[in-house]
Amino acid sequence: MKVVKSIADLHRELDAFSSGHIGLVPTMGCLHRGHMSLVEAAGKENDATVVSIFVNPTQFGPGEDLERYPRDLDRDCRMLREAGVELVFAPAPEEMYPPGFYTRIDQEVLGAGLCGASRPGHFSGVLTVVAKLLGICRPDRVYFGIKDAQQAVMVTRMVRDLNMHVKVRVMPIIRDADGLALSSRNRYLSHDDRLLALALPGALDAARRKIEMGEKSSRVLVREIRDHIVQTPGVELEYVEIVNLDDMQPIDRVTSTGTLVAAAIRVGGTRLIDNFIVGEI
Amino acid sequence: MKVVKSIADLHRELDAFSSGHIGLVPTMGCLHRGHMSLVEAAGKENDATVVSIFVNPTQFGPGEDLERYPRDLDRDCRMLREAGVELVFAPAPEEMYPPGFYTRIDQEVLGAGLCGASRPGHFSGVLTVVAKLLGICRPDRVYFGIKDAQQAVMVTRMVRDLNMHVKVRVMPIIRDADGLALSSRNRYLSHDDRLLALALPGALDAARRKIEMGEKSSRVLVREIRDHIVQTPGVELEYVEIVNLDDMQPIDRVTSTGTLVAAAIRVGGTRLIDNFIVGEI
Repeated sequence: MKVVKSIADLHRELDAFSSGHIGLVPTMGCLHRGHMSLVEAAGKENDATVVSIFVNPTQFGPGEDLERYPRDLDRDCRMLREAGVELVFAPAPEEMYPPGFYTRIDQEVLGAGLCGASRPGHFSGVLTVVAKLLGICRPDRVYFGIKDAQQAVMVTRMVRDLNMHVKVRVMPIIRDADGLALSSRNRYLSHDDRLLALALPGALDAARRKIEMGEKSSRVLVREIRDHIVQTPGVELEYVEIVNLDDMQPIDRVTSTGTLVAAAIRVGGTRLIDNFIVGEI
Repeated sequence: MKVVKSIADLHRELDAFSSGHIGLVPTMGCLHRGHMSLVEAAGKENDATVVSIFVNPTQFGPGEDLERYPRDLDRDCRMLREAGVELVFAPAPEEMYPPGFYTRIDQEVLGAGLCGASRPGHFSGVLTVVAKLLGICRPDRVYFGIKDAQQAVMVTRMVRDLNMHVKVRVMPIIRDADGLALSSRNRYLSHDDRLLALALPGALDAARRKIEMGEKSSRVLVREIRDHIVQTPGVELEYVEIVNLDDMQPIDRVTSTGTLVAAAIRVGGTRLIDNFIVGEI
């Protein structure tokens, strides 16, 4: 496995794989089993897997956790080597954003609600860096987890809108045994906070069961999730939304053709998100 | 020469050229010798030339000339066939922007001044459609005229920022014998308006001569151009700006490392632009 920091070095290494299919897994590092499930899928579906590790500053807002976001490149590389990854691209911010970098990609309609409401500019940062990584790596397939559902939908749409020559593969949420969705930010949680955080998957699970029993009203389901979360002391609900997966707009009734039920909470200063989908992605 | 209207048909035709280099000339049709100089350059530098003809609605603002913008596909195709072009892509707006198209590309710093000041959203429309055309056609080289200097700089920057795998070739302004820069909009001009419009190349030419004689002050040069234009009755000056080509920001003194001197006028309801560059692009 090669670890490269510059775009020029990456291109030199990629030339060796020019005849095969490339899978790209874009990450911010501090890898967990969620990332590794993407790496595994990429390994199965392609001739070579490239994992990018880049804590992208443009998707963090003022006051967010850019500075303290966990970084552990050595550990990440050990995990990726064991998983049989061919190439790791770990650029510095200056390599990705040299002076005079001015281009921004955005999708106002899709990025306005859910996480976008409390993180202005976040998704523009995500779309721009993903477009740049796709331009740099030119993969045949790129892998995202549905845990970041709004991101996955927006990236998929960008690729479709701009006719980018890549297949976006969206993979399931990976959870710990207690039900908490894996996230690099979980390591911010104290033992007690982690127990409180389980209110999030618990509330979503309760809503999912209600849907399975026939409940379709978004109002009823949102209240169910909200009540479940706000009754947990120390947990602050940021949002709970039920939206159409296609345009991220709130819908009154859950449908089986692609409904996203998503929520975000704050526990002890840590922001966590989780979701489930009814119907097809 | 094949003329295709759908992306699927274009891809079928492009498959035939998969081993050679492709040159793309994006146009809004109503072709003139300016476009044909790009077509000629593309023909020389590539194995096959694709010309797109698409009056892109997203780069027109409210009240602009989208509806009356001249369209003559038959004549355009005759000219392109004679020039030896392999493929014409002439999609309908619905083919380019199906329902649920949400992605926008922008460069606020580069797009704020000059033409961007009076045409909000224009350059976002340009960058987005160019990115989409590059995604659809995947050319090795793409051709633009420096007559639309801000556009050429912004597209070049987008390609660099997003590491798009294409070489942007920027070609010189082509002028009629009287000095007027070729533009599809010139056909809006009455005979009298056309004579008045010559104040634009005349003023720029006078400024260029002053620079050649040693004048470096932007203030002096802007006043020279302004005075020249406003003394022509029936001609309205929209802007005259002297900017750094690299960031499109106004500069106090002309330098030989890339200065753009650009102006826009209105004559009888028609908006015309022209420019010259000091130093290297």
